Amino acid sequence: MPMDIILNGTELAAKALSDDGGENAALAIMTTDTRPKSFATRIDIGGVTVTLGGMTKGAGMIAPKLRMAPPQATMLSYVTTDAVIDKAALHAALAAALDKSYNRITVDGDTSTNDTFVALANAQAGNKAITQGTPEFDLFADALARLAGRLAKEMVKDGEGVSRFVEVNVTGAKSDADARVCAEAIANSALCKTAWFGADPNWGRILCAAGYCGISFDPSKVSLDMQGAPVVRGGMDAGTPESELVKLVSEKEVKIDLDLGAGNGSFTVWTCDLTYEYVKINADYHT
Amino acid sequence: MPMDIILNGTELAAKALSDDGGENAALAIMTTDTRPKSFATRIDIGGVTVTLGGMTKGAGMIAPKLRMAPPQATMLSYVTTDAVIDKAALHAALAAALDKSYNRITVDGDTSTNDTFVALANAQAGNKAITQGTPEFDLFADALARLAGRLAKEMVKDGEGVSRFVEVNVTGAKSDADARVCAEAIANSALCKTAWFGADPNWGRILCAAGYCGISFDPSKVSLDMQGAPVVRGGMDAGTPESELVKLVSEKEVKIDLDLGAGNGSFTVWTCDLTYEYVKINADYHT
Repeated sequence: MPMDIILNGTELAAKALSDDGGENAALAIMTTDTRPKSFATRIDIGGVTVTLGGMTKGAGMIAPKLRMAPPQATMLSYVTTDAVIDKAALHAALAAALDKSYNRITVDGDTSTNDTFVALANAQAGNKAITQGTPEFDLFADALARLAGRLAKEMVKDGEGVSRFVEVNVTGAKSDADARVCAEAIANSALCKTAWFGADPNWGRILCAAGYCGISFDPSKVSLDMQGAPVVRGGMDAGTPESELVKLVSEKEVKIDLDLGAGNGSFTVWTCDLTYEYVKINADYHT
Repeated sequence: MPMDIILNGTELAAKALSDDGGENAALAIMTTDTRPKSFATRIDIGGVTVTLGGMTKGAGMIAPKLRMAPPQATMLSYVTTDAVIDKAALHAALAAALDKSYNRITVDGDTSTNDTFVALANAQAGNKAITQGTPEFDLFADALARLAGRLAKEMVKDGEGVSRFVEVNVTGAKSDADARVCAEAIANSALCKTAWFGADPNWGRILCAAGYCGISFDPSKVSLDMQGAPVVRGGMDAGTPESELVKLVSEKEVKIDLDLGAGNGSFTVWTCDLTYEYVKINADYHT
Protein backbone atom coordinates (compact mmCIF):
# COMPACT_ATOMS: atom_id res chain seq x y z
CA MET A 1 0.00 0.00 0.00
CA PRO A 2 1.46 3.38 -0.98
CA MET A 3 2.31 5.93 1.69
CA ASP A 4 -0.51 8.44 1.61
CA ILE A 5 0.93 11.19 3.79
CA ILE A 6 -1.34 14.01 2.79
CA LEU A 7 -0.31 16.92 4.97
CA ASN A 8 3.02 18.16 6.23
CA GLY A 9 3.44 19.74 9.64
CA THR A 10 2.92 23.28 8.45
CA GLU A 11 -0.27 22.46 6.62
CA LEU A 12 -1.56 20.55 9.60
CA ALA A 13 -0.77 23.43 11.93
CA ALA A 14 -3.03 25.64 9.86
CA LYS A 15 -5.91 23.43 10.96
CA ALA A 16 -5.06 23.50 14.68
CA LEU A 17 -6.59 25.71 17.36
CA SER A 18 -3.75 28.13 16.90
CA ASP A 19 -2.72 28.66 13.30
CA ASP A 20 0.91 27.82 13.99
CA GLY A 21 0.49 25.75 17.16
CA GLY A 22 1.42 22.40 15.65
CA GLU A 23 4.58 23.63 13.98
CA ASN A 24 5.56 25.54 17.12
CA ALA A 25 5.15 22.39 19.18
CA ALA A 26 7.25 20.34 16.76
CA LEU A 27 9.92 23.07 16.92
CA ALA A 28 9.70 23.41 20.69
CA ILE A 29 10.50 19.77 21.42
CA MET A 30 13.69 19.77 19.27
CA THR A 31 17.12 19.38 20.86
CA THR A 32 19.94 18.45 18.44
CA ASP A 33 17.37 17.83 15.71
CA THR A 34 18.01 19.99 12.64
CA ARG A 35 14.36 20.15 11.57
CA PRO A 36 10.88 19.57 12.95
CA LYS A 37 9.35 16.24 12.00
CA SER A 38 5.58 16.07 11.76
CA PHE A 39 3.25 14.29 9.39
CA ALA A 40 -0.40 13.42 9.08
CA THR A 41 -2.54 10.99 7.17
CA ARG A 42 -6.26 10.45 6.61
CA ILE A 43 -8.42 7.38 6.34
CA ASP A 44 -12.09 6.77 5.72
CA ILE A 45 -13.90 4.95 8.53
CA GLY A 46 -17.43 4.07 7.45
CA GLY A 47 -17.80 7.21 5.36
CA VAL A 48 -16.27 9.43 8.05
CA THR A 49 -12.84 11.02 7.51
CA VAL A 50 -10.46 10.28 10.36
CA THR A 51 -7.16 12.16 10.63
CA LEU A 52 -3.98 10.96 12.34
CA GLY A 53 -1.17 13.46 13.01
CA GLY A 54 2.21 12.83 14.56
CA MET A 55 5.39 14.63 15.57
CA THR A 56 8.66 13.33 16.90
CA LYS A 57 12.03 14.58 18.07
CA GLY A 58 15.31 12.84 18.92
CA ALA A 59 18.66 12.68 17.16
CA GLY A 60 21.14 11.01 19.48
CA MET A 61 20.78 8.37 22.18
CA ILE A 62 18.30 6.86 19.79
CA ALA A 63 17.71 3.12 19.90
CA PRO A 64 14.24 2.85 21.36
CA LYS A 65 13.12 -0.36 22.94
CA LEU A 66 9.44 0.34 23.20
CA ARG A 67 8.72 -3.34 23.42
CA MET A 68 6.10 -3.48 26.12
CA ALA A 69 2.59 -2.24 25.95
CA PRO A 70 2.24 1.48 25.35
CA PRO A 71 2.45 4.09 26.75
CA GLN A 72 6.19 4.10 27.32
CA ALA A 73 8.66 6.40 28.82
CA THR A 74 14.55 11.05 25.53
CA MET A 75 12.95 10.70 22.29
CA LEU A 76 9.54 12.34 22.29
CA SER A 77 6.81 11.31 19.93
CA TYR A 78 3.19 12.30 19.85
CA VAL A 79 0.40 11.09 17.65
CA THR A 80 -3.03 12.62 17.74
CA THR A 81 -6.18 11.55 16.02
CA ASP A 82 -9.77 12.63 15.97
CA ALA A 83 -10.89 9.00 15.67
CA VAL A 84 -13.46 7.49 17.96
CA ILE A 85 -11.59 4.38 19.13
CA ASP A 86 -11.72 2.38 22.33
CA LYS A 87 -8.68 2.41 24.59
CA ALA A 88 -7.78 -1.27 24.14
CA ALA A 89 -7.95 -0.89 20.37
CA LEU A 90 -5.72 2.22 20.44
CA HIS A 91 -3.22 0.41 22.66
CA ALA A 92 -3.19 -2.64 20.40
CA ALA A 93 -2.80 -0.51 17.26
CA LEU A 94 0.00 1.49 18.89
CA ALA A 95 1.89 -1.61 20.11
CA ALA A 96 1.74 -3.08 16.60
CA ALA A 97 2.78 0.24 15.03
CA LEU A 98 5.76 0.66 17.37
CA ASP A 99 6.96 -2.84 16.69
CA LYS A 100 7.12 -2.02 12.98
CA SER A 101 8.69 1.43 13.40
CA TYR A 102 10.31 2.87 16.53
CA ASN A 103 11.41 -0.55 17.71
CA ARG A 104 13.36 -1.02 14.46
CA ILE A 105 15.49 2.12 14.49
CA THR A 106 18.90 2.93 15.92
CA VAL A 107 21.09 5.99 15.48
CA ASP A 108 23.87 5.17 17.92
CA GLY A 109 22.76 2.09 19.82
CA ASP A 110 22.37 4.11 23.02
CA THR A 111 18.91 3.35 24.30
CA SER A 112 17.55 6.16 26.39
CA THR A 113 16.02 5.26 29.70
CA ASN A 114 13.21 7.75 29.09
CA ASP A 115 11.75 7.59 25.61
CA THR A 116 8.18 8.69 25.25
CA PHE A 117 5.57 7.84 22.68
CA VAL A 118 2.07 9.10 23.34
CA ALA A 119 -1.05 8.58 21.26
CA LEU A 120 -4.11 10.71 21.92
CA ALA A 121 -7.55 10.28 20.43
CA ASN A 122 -10.20 12.96 21.04
CA ALA A 123 -13.13 11.23 19.32
CA GLN A 124 -14.14 14.39 17.42
CA ALA A 125 -14.43 12.71 14.00
CA GLY A 126 -17.75 11.15 14.91
CA ASN A 127 -17.06 7.79 13.27
CA LYS A 128 -18.51 4.56 14.64
CA ALA A 129 -16.17 3.55 17.50
CA ILE A 130 -13.25 1.45 16.26
CA THR A 131 -12.80 -1.84 18.11
CA GLN A 132 -10.33 -4.70 17.68
CA GLY A 133 -11.08 -7.48 15.22
CA THR A 134 -12.83 -5.27 12.69
CA PRO A 135 -11.81 -4.13 9.20
CA GLU A 136 -11.92 -0.55 10.53
CA PHE A 137 -9.36 -1.48 13.19
CA ASP A 138 -7.05 -2.94 10.53
CA LEU A 139 -7.43 0.25 8.50
CA PHE A 140 -6.66 2.45 11.50
CA ALA A 141 -3.78 0.24 12.71
CA ASP A 142 -2.27 0.28 9.21
CA ALA A 143 -2.52 4.08 9.01
CA LEU A 144 -0.98 4.43 12.45
CA ALA A 145 1.86 2.03 11.54
CA ARG A 146 2.61 3.96 8.35
CA LEU A 147 2.58 7.27 10.22
CA ALA A 148 4.85 5.89 12.98
CA GLY A 149 7.12 4.40 10.30
CA ARG A 150 7.45 7.74 8.54
CA LEU A 151 8.16 9.56 11.82
CA ALA A 152 10.73 6.93 12.89
CA LYS A 153 12.56 7.00 9.53
CA GLU A 154 12.65 10.80 9.49
CA MET A 155 14.11 10.77 12.99
CA VAL A 156 16.96 8.50 11.84
CA LYS A 157 17.55 10.64 8.72
CA ASP A 158 17.82 13.68 11.01
CA GLY A 159 19.97 11.75 13.51
CA GLU A 160 23.06 13.43 14.91
CA GLY A 161 25.62 13.90 12.15
CA VAL A 162 23.84 11.47 9.84
CA SER A 163 24.89 11.65 6.19
CA ARG A 164 23.40 8.36 5.02
CA PHE A 165 20.27 6.39 5.87
CA VAL A 166 20.72 2.61 5.83
CA GLU A 167 18.06 -0.08 5.81
CA VAL A 168 19.36 -3.42 7.04
CA ASN A 169 17.14 -6.35 6.10
CA VAL A 170 18.06 -9.71 7.52
CA THR A 171 16.21 -12.72 6.12
CA GLY A 172 16.79 -16.47 6.25
CA ALA A 173 17.50 -16.51 9.99
CA LYS A 174 16.37 -19.41 12.13
CA SER A 175 13.81 -17.12 13.78
CA ASP A 176 12.64 -13.52 13.73
CA ALA A 177 14.41 -13.12 17.09
CA ASP A 178 17.70 -14.28 15.53
CA ALA A 179 17.18 -11.94 12.58
CA ARG A 180 16.61 -9.06 15.00
CA VAL A 181 19.80 -9.77 16.97
CA CYS A 182 21.75 -9.94 13.70
CA ALA A 183 20.23 -6.80 12.13
CA GLU A 184 20.78 -4.82 15.34
CA ALA A 185 24.41 -5.98 15.61
CA ILE A 186 25.09 -4.80 12.03
CA ALA A 187 23.19 -1.54 12.52
CA ASN A 188 25.06 -0.75 15.75
CA SER A 189 28.52 -1.81 14.58
CA ALA A 190 30.96 1.13 14.66
CA LEU A 191 32.88 -0.52 11.82
CA CYS A 192 29.83 -0.99 9.59
CA LYS A 193 28.62 2.55 10.34
CA THR A 194 31.99 4.17 9.53
CA ALA A 195 32.22 2.08 6.33
CA TRP A 196 28.81 3.43 5.31
CA PHE A 197 30.04 6.97 5.98
CA GLY A 198 33.00 6.25 3.70
CA ALA A 199 30.76 4.77 0.96
CA ASP A 200 32.75 1.58 1.42
CA PRO A 201 30.89 -1.55 0.24
CA ASN A 202 32.77 -3.50 2.92
CA TRP A 203 30.94 -6.79 3.33
CA GLY A 204 33.52 -8.30 5.65
CA ARG A 205 32.43 -6.00 8.48
CA ILE A 206 28.76 -6.89 7.92
CA LEU A 207 29.43 -10.61 7.93
CA CYS A 208 31.71 -10.18 10.95
CA ALA A 209 28.91 -8.52 12.93
CA ALA A 210 26.58 -11.34 11.90
CA GLY A 211 29.26 -13.76 13.05
CA TYR A 212 29.77 -12.29 16.49
CA CYS A 213 26.17 -11.45 17.31
CA GLY A 214 25.58 -14.86 18.87
CA ILE A 215 23.18 -16.52 16.44
CA SER A 216 24.05 -19.60 14.43
CA PHE A 217 24.16 -19.95 10.64
CA ASP A 218 26.36 -21.50 7.99
CA PRO A 219 28.67 -18.84 6.45
CA SER A 220 28.80 -20.80 3.20
CA LYS A 221 25.05 -20.28 2.74
CA VAL A 222 25.10 -16.51 3.17
CA SER A 223 24.02 -14.06 0.45
CA LEU A 224 24.40 -10.29 0.66
CA ASP A 225 23.07 -7.58 -1.65
CA MET A 226 23.65 -3.82 -1.55
CA GLN A 227 21.09 -1.68 -3.39
CA GLY A 228 19.95 -4.89 -5.06
CA ALA A 229 23.39 -5.73 -6.48
CA PRO A 230 24.90 -9.08 -5.52
CA VAL A 231 27.85 -8.69 -3.16
CA VAL A 232 28.15 -12.12 -1.51
CA ARG A 233 26.92 -15.47 -2.76
CA GLY A 234 27.52 -18.69 -0.88
CA GLY A 235 29.64 -16.81 1.62
CA MET A 236 32.04 -15.61 -1.07
CA ASP A 237 32.54 -12.41 -3.09
CA ALA A 238 29.87 -12.34 -5.81
CA GLY A 239 32.20 -10.61 -8.27
CA THR A 240 30.33 -7.31 -8.72
CA PRO A 241 33.10 -4.78 -9.45
CA GLU A 242 33.94 -2.66 -6.39
CA SER A 243 33.70 0.58 -8.39
CA GLU A 244 30.08 -0.32 -9.18
CA LEU A 245 29.31 -1.08 -5.54
CA VAL A 246 30.98 2.12 -4.34
CA LYS A 247 28.70 4.06 -6.67
CA LEU A 248 25.64 2.25 -5.31
CA VAL A 249 26.47 2.77 -1.64
CA SER A 250 27.24 6.46 -2.26
CA GLU A 251 23.51 7.14 -2.44
CA LYS A 252 21.83 9.04 0.43
CA GLU A 253 19.76 5.96 1.20
CA VAL A 254 21.29 2.51 1.09
CA LYS A 255 19.53 -0.86 1.31
CA ILE A 256 21.39 -3.90 2.56
CA ASP A 257 19.85 -7.36 2.26
CA LEU A 258 21.50 -10.18 4.14
CA ASP A 259 20.10 -13.68 3.66
CA LEU A 260 21.56 -16.08 6.22
CA GLY A 261 20.18 -19.18 4.48
CA ALA A 262 19.26 -20.77 7.80
CA GLY A 263 15.47 -20.45 8.03
CA ASN A 264 12.52 -18.15 7.59
CA GLY A 265 13.19 -15.52 10.27
CA SER A 266 13.41 -11.90 9.17
CA PHE A 267 13.81 -8.43 10.67
CA THR A 268 14.50 -4.94 9.34
CA VAL A 269 16.40 -2.14 11.12
CA TRP A 270 16.55 1.47 9.94
CA THR A 271 19.86 3.07 10.84
CA CYS A 272 22.56 5.49 9.67
CA ASP A 273 26.28 6.05 9.30
CA LEU A 274 28.71 7.21 12.00
CA THR A 275 30.33 10.49 10.97
CA TYR A 276 32.81 13.13 12.14
CA GLU A 277 29.79 15.31 12.87
CA TYR A 278 28.32 12.76 15.30
CA VAL A 279 31.61 12.72 17.20
CA LYS A 280 31.75 16.53 17.13
CA ILE A 281 28.21 16.98 18.43
CA ASN A 282 28.70 14.51 21.25
CA ALA A 283 32.23 15.43 22.24
CA ASP A 284 31.46 19.16 22.30
CA TYR A 285 28.05 19.00 23.94
CA HIS A 286 28.75 19.26 27.69
CA THR A 287 25.78 18.87 30.00
CA MET B 1 52.13 -7.06 43.42
CA PRO B 2 54.04 -4.50 41.33
CA MET B 3 54.36 -4.97 37.59
CA ASP B 4 57.87 -6.24 37.04
CA ILE B 5 58.16 -5.92 33.28
CA ILE B 6 61.91 -6.18 32.94
CA LEU B 7 62.56 -6.18 29.23
CA ASN B 8 61.01 -4.33 26.35
CA GLY B 9 60.59 -5.91 22.94
CA THR B 10 63.87 -4.66 21.53
CA GLU B 11 65.86 -5.91 24.48
CA LEU B 12 64.14 -9.24 24.29
CA ALA B 13 64.84 -9.49 20.58
CA ALA B 14 68.55 -9.18 21.33
CA LYS B 15 68.27 -12.49 23.13
CA ALA B 16 66.39 -14.26 20.32
CA LEU B 17 67.88 -16.53 17.68
CA SER B 18 68.09 -13.59 15.31
CA ASP B 19 69.20 -10.34 16.92
CA ASP B 20 66.18 -8.44 15.67
CA GLY B 21 63.78 -11.34 15.13
CA GLY B 22 61.43 -10.51 17.97
CA GLU B 23 61.03 -6.85 17.07
CA ASN B 24 60.64 -7.74 13.41
CA ALA B 25 57.86 -10.17 14.26
CA ALA B 26 56.06 -7.60 16.41
CA LEU B 27 56.37 -5.11 13.52
CA ALA B 28 55.35 -7.67 10.91
CA ILE B 29 51.98 -8.47 12.53
CA MET B 30 50.90 -4.80 12.75
CA THR B 31 47.99 -3.50 10.69
CA THR B 32 46.53 -0.13 11.82
CA ASP B 33 48.65 -0.34 14.97
CA THR B 34 50.95 2.68 15.35
CA ARG B 35 53.64 0.83 17.32
CA PRO B 36 54.78 -2.70 18.06
CA LYS B 37 53.66 -4.02 21.42
CA SER B 38 55.88 -6.61 23.12
CA PHE B 39 56.87 -7.15 26.72
CA ALA B 40 58.54 -9.78 28.84
CA THR B 41 58.80 -10.69 32.49
CA ARG B 42 60.85 -13.11 34.57
CA ILE B 43 60.04 -15.23 37.57
CA ASP B 44 62.02 -17.58 39.75
CA ILE B 45 60.75 -21.16 39.79
CA GLY B 46 62.62 -23.18 42.39
CA GLY B 47 65.86 -21.31 41.84
CA VAL B 48 65.54 -21.41 38.05
CA THR B 49 64.85 -18.21 36.09
CA VAL B 50 61.84 -18.58 33.80
CA THR B 51 61.10 -15.93 31.15
CA LEU B 52 57.72 -15.09 29.62
CA GLY B 53 57.57 -12.89 26.53
CA GLY B 54 54.54 -11.67 24.65
CA MET B 55 53.56 -9.61 21.65
CA THR B 56 50.18 -8.46 20.38
CA LYS B 57 48.62 -6.52 17.56
CA GLY B 58 45.13 -5.18 16.90
CA ALA B 59 43.67 -1.69 16.93
CA GLY B 60 40.15 -1.86 15.54
CA MET B 61 37.48 -4.55 15.60
CA ILE B 62 38.75 -5.13 19.14
CA ALA B 63 36.39 -6.56 21.71
CA PRO B 64 37.76 -10.08 22.23
CA LYS B 65 35.53 -12.72 23.70
CA LEU B 66 38.12 -15.36 24.46
CA ARG B 67 35.85 -16.87 27.01
CA MET B 68 36.24 -20.55 26.36
CA ALA B 69 39.29 -22.66 26.98
CA PRO B 70 42.36 -21.53 25.07
CA PRO B 71 43.58 -21.71 22.37
CA GLN B 72 41.14 -19.38 20.61
CA ALA B 73 40.81 -18.04 17.24
CA THR B 74 41.87 -10.54 14.05
CA MET B 75 43.76 -9.59 16.98
CA LEU B 76 46.97 -11.60 17.16
CA SER B 77 48.73 -12.27 20.42
CA TYR B 78 51.63 -14.56 21.15
CA VAL B 79 53.24 -15.40 24.44
CA THR B 80 56.34 -17.53 24.65
CA THR B 81 58.09 -18.90 27.66
CA ASP B 82 61.01 -21.17 28.33
CA ALA B 83 59.18 -22.65 31.31
CA VAL B 84 58.81 -26.38 31.74
CA ILE B 85 55.04 -26.60 32.30
CA ASP B 86 52.52 -29.29 31.58
CA LYS B 87 49.89 -28.62 28.93
CA ALA B 88 46.91 -28.60 31.30
CA ALA B 89 48.66 -26.15 33.60
CA LEU B 90 49.54 -23.84 30.68
CA HIS B 91 45.92 -23.96 29.48
CA ALA B 92 44.59 -23.22 32.94
CA ALA B 93 47.03 -20.35 33.48
CA LEU B 94 46.17 -18.93 30.05
CA ALA B 95 42.40 -19.17 30.57
CA ALA B 96 42.74 -17.34 33.90
CA ALA B 97 45.07 -14.73 32.37
CA LEU B 98 42.72 -14.05 29.44
CA ASP B 99 39.77 -13.64 31.76
CA LYS B 100 41.65 -10.86 33.57
CA SER B 101 42.99 -9.16 30.45
CA TYR B 102 41.89 -9.68 26.84
CA ASN B 103 38.37 -10.55 27.91
CA ARG B 104 38.08 -7.14 29.61
CA ILE B 105 39.02 -4.86 26.74
CA THR B 106 37.06 -3.16 24.01
CA VAL B 107 38.08 -0.55 21.49
CA ASP B 108 34.93 -0.36 19.39
CA GLY B 109 32.72 -3.20 20.55
CA ASP B 110 33.20 -5.04 17.27
CA THR B 111 34.25 -8.52 18.23
CA SER B 112 36.28 -10.14 15.50
CA THR B 113 35.31 -13.63 14.48
CA ASN B 114 38.98 -14.62 14.32
CA ASP B 115 41.02 -13.40 17.27
CA THR B 116 44.08 -15.45 18.11
CA PHE B 117 45.97 -15.82 21.34
CA VAL B 118 48.72 -18.45 21.37
CA ALA B 119 50.98 -19.42 24.25
CA LEU B 120 54.08 -21.51 23.54
CA ALA B 121 56.38 -23.07 26.10
CA ASN B 122 59.62 -24.69 24.92
CA ALA B 123 60.75 -26.08 28.28
CA GLN B 124 64.31 -24.78 27.86
CA ALA B 125 64.56 -23.15 31.30
CA GLY B 126 65.11 -26.51 32.96
CA ASN B 127 62.90 -25.80 35.96
CA LYS B 128 60.99 -28.56 37.70
CA ALA B 129 57.82 -29.04 35.64
CA ILE B 130 55.02 -26.66 36.74
CA THR B 131 51.74 -28.40 37.51
CA GLN B 132 48.40 -27.07 38.75
CA GLY B 133 47.75 -26.71 42.46
CA THR B 134 51.32 -25.73 43.35
CA PRO B 135 52.82 -22.41 44.50
CA GLU B 136 54.93 -22.45 41.32
CA PHE B 137 51.76 -22.62 39.23
CA ASP B 138 50.34 -19.60 41.06
CA LEU B 139 53.59 -17.72 40.46
CA PHE B 140 53.57 -18.59 36.76
CA ALA B 141 49.84 -17.89 36.34
CA ASP B 142 50.26 -14.50 38.04
CA ALA B 143 53.19 -13.59 35.78
CA LEU B 144 51.24 -14.66 32.70
CA ALA B 145 48.17 -12.66 33.83
CA ARG B 146 50.29 -9.53 34.39
CA LEU B 147 51.96 -9.95 30.99
CA ALA B 148 48.60 -10.50 29.24
CA GLY B 149 47.18 -7.50 31.13
CA ARG B 150 50.01 -5.26 29.98
CA LEU B 151 49.66 -6.43 26.37
CA ALA B 152 45.87 -5.97 26.43
CA LYS B 153 46.09 -2.46 27.92
CA GLU B 154 48.75 -1.39 25.43
CA MET B 155 46.57 -2.66 22.60
CA VAL B 156 43.68 -0.45 23.77
CA LYS B 157 45.99 2.56 24.21
CA ASP B 158 47.16 2.02 20.61
CA GLY B 159 43.59 1.41 19.41
CA GLU B 160 42.41 3.12 16.26
CA GLY B 161 42.28 6.87 16.80
CA VAL B 162 42.45 6.52 20.60
CA SER B 163 43.30 9.71 22.50
CA ARG B 164 42.28 8.58 25.98
CA PHE B 165 42.41 5.27 27.86
CA VAL B 166 39.48 4.66 30.19
CA GLU B 167 39.16 2.10 32.95
CA VAL B 168 35.54 1.35 33.84
CA ASN B 169 35.14 -0.34 37.21
CA VAL B 170 31.69 -1.49 38.14
CA THR B 171 31.14 -2.67 41.70
CA GLY B 172 28.09 -3.30 43.86
CA ALA B 173 26.25 -5.23 41.16
CA LYS B 174 24.06 -8.17 42.06
CA SER B 175 26.61 -10.49 40.43
CA ASP B 176 29.89 -10.36 38.54
CA ALA B 177 27.89 -11.21 35.42
CA ASP B 178 25.66 -8.15 35.97
CA ALA B 179 28.74 -5.99 36.58
CA ARG B 180 30.22 -7.24 33.31
CA VAL B 181 27.08 -6.44 31.29
CA CYS B 182 27.01 -2.96 32.84
CA ALA B 183 30.74 -2.22 32.38
CA GLU B 184 30.62 -3.41 28.76
CA ALA B 185 27.53 -1.31 27.99
CA ILE B 186 29.28 1.82 29.32
CA ALA B 187 32.57 0.97 27.57
CA ASN B 188 30.81 0.39 24.23
CA SER B 189 28.42 3.37 24.41
CA ALA B 190 29.05 5.80 21.54
CA LEU B 191 27.78 8.61 23.77
CA CYS B 192 30.10 7.75 26.68
CA LYS B 193 33.06 7.32 24.31
CA THR B 194 32.50 10.66 22.54
CA ALA B 195 32.06 12.39 25.93
CA TRP B 196 35.44 10.98 27.02
CA PHE B 197 36.98 12.31 23.78
CA GLY B 198 35.57 15.72 24.63
CA ALA B 199 36.83 15.54 28.26
CA ASP B 200 33.21 15.85 29.31
CA PRO B 201 32.52 14.52 32.82
CA ASN B 202 29.03 13.60 31.64
CA TRP B 203 27.61 11.19 34.18
CA GLY B 204 24.14 11.11 32.70
CA ARG B 205 25.37 9.08 29.74
CA ILE B 206 27.14 6.60 32.03
CA LEU B 207 24.09 6.10 34.21
CA CYS B 208 21.92 5.88 31.10
CA ALA B 209 24.05 3.00 29.75
CA ALA B 210 23.81 1.30 33.14
CA GLY B 211 20.06 1.83 32.98
CA TYR B 212 19.52 0.33 29.55
CA CYS B 213 21.96 -2.58 29.80
CA GLY B 214 19.32 -4.87 31.22
CA ILE B 215 20.47 -5.43 34.80
CA SER B 216 18.49 -4.28 37.81
CA PHE B 217 19.57 -1.81 40.49
CA ASP B 218 18.15 1.11 42.43
CA PRO B 219 19.23 4.44 40.86
CA SER B 220 18.97 6.16 44.23
CA LYS B 221 21.75 3.94 45.60
CA VAL B 222 24.25 4.64 42.82
CA SER B 223 27.65 6.27 43.42
CA LEU B 224 30.03 7.37 40.67
CA ASP B 225 33.61 8.62 40.91
CA MET B 226 35.88 9.94 38.16
CA GLN B 227 39.61 9.87 38.93
CA GLY B 228 38.64 9.34 42.57
CA ALA B 229 36.51 12.48 42.76
CA PRO B 230 32.87 12.09 43.77
CA VAL B 231 30.51 12.74 40.87
CA VAL B 232 27.29 11.01 41.91
CA ARG B 233 26.08 10.08 45.38
CA GLY B 234 22.73 8.47 46.01
CA GLY B 235 21.90 8.82 42.34
CA MET B 236 22.32 12.60 42.44
CA ASP B 237 25.04 15.08 41.49
CA ALA B 238 27.70 14.99 44.24
CA GLY B 239 28.46 18.67 43.85
CA THR B 240 32.07 18.51 42.69
CA PRO B 241 32.51 21.59 40.48
CA GLU B 242 32.38 20.74 36.77
CA SER B 243 35.58 22.69 36.07
CA GLU B 244 37.39 20.41 38.50
CA LEU B 245 35.95 17.29 36.90
CA VAL B 246 36.79 18.51 33.38
CA LYS B 247 40.41 18.90 34.48
CA LEU B 248 40.42 15.36 35.93
CA VAL B 249 38.94 13.68 32.87
CA SER B 250 41.33 15.58 30.58
CA GLU B 251 44.12 13.20 31.64
CA LYS B 252 45.39 10.63 29.13
CA GLU B 253 44.14 7.87 31.39
CA VAL B 254 40.81 8.13 33.17
CA LYS B 255 39.39 5.89 35.87
CA ILE B 256 35.65 5.60 36.35
CA ASP B 257 34.22 3.84 39.39
CA LEU B 258 30.54 3.05 39.38
CA ASP B 259 29.05 1.47 42.50
CA LEU B 260 25.53 0.23 41.87
CA GLY B 261 24.79 -0.41 45.55
CA ALA B 262 22.98 -3.65 44.75
CA GLY B 263 25.38 -6.39 45.79
CA ASN B 264 28.94 -7.64 45.67
CA GLY B 265 29.43 -8.25 41.95
CA SER B 266 32.28 -6.44 40.20
CA PHE B 267 33.94 -6.24 36.80
CA THR B 268 36.52 -3.98 35.11
CA VAL B 269 36.71 -3.10 31.41
CA TRP B 270 39.62 -1.28 29.76
CA THR B 271 38.46 0.88 26.91
CA CYS B 272 39.01 4.18 25.10
CA ASP B 273 37.34 7.21 23.58
CA LEU B 274 35.70 7.47 20.14
CA THR B 275 37.47 10.13 18.07
CA TYR B 276 37.42 11.80 14.65
CA GLU B 277 40.51 9.72 13.85
CA TYR B 278 38.65 6.44 14.49
CA VAL B 279 35.96 7.54 12.04
CA LYS B 280 38.62 8.65 9.53
CA ILE B 281 40.56 5.38 9.71
CA ASN B 282 37.46 3.26 9.28
CA ALA B 283 35.66 5.40 6.71
CA ASP B 284 38.74 5.77 4.51
CA TYR B 285 40.07 2.23 4.80
CA HIS B 286 38.43 0.33 1.92
CA THR B 287 39.09 -3.39 1.77
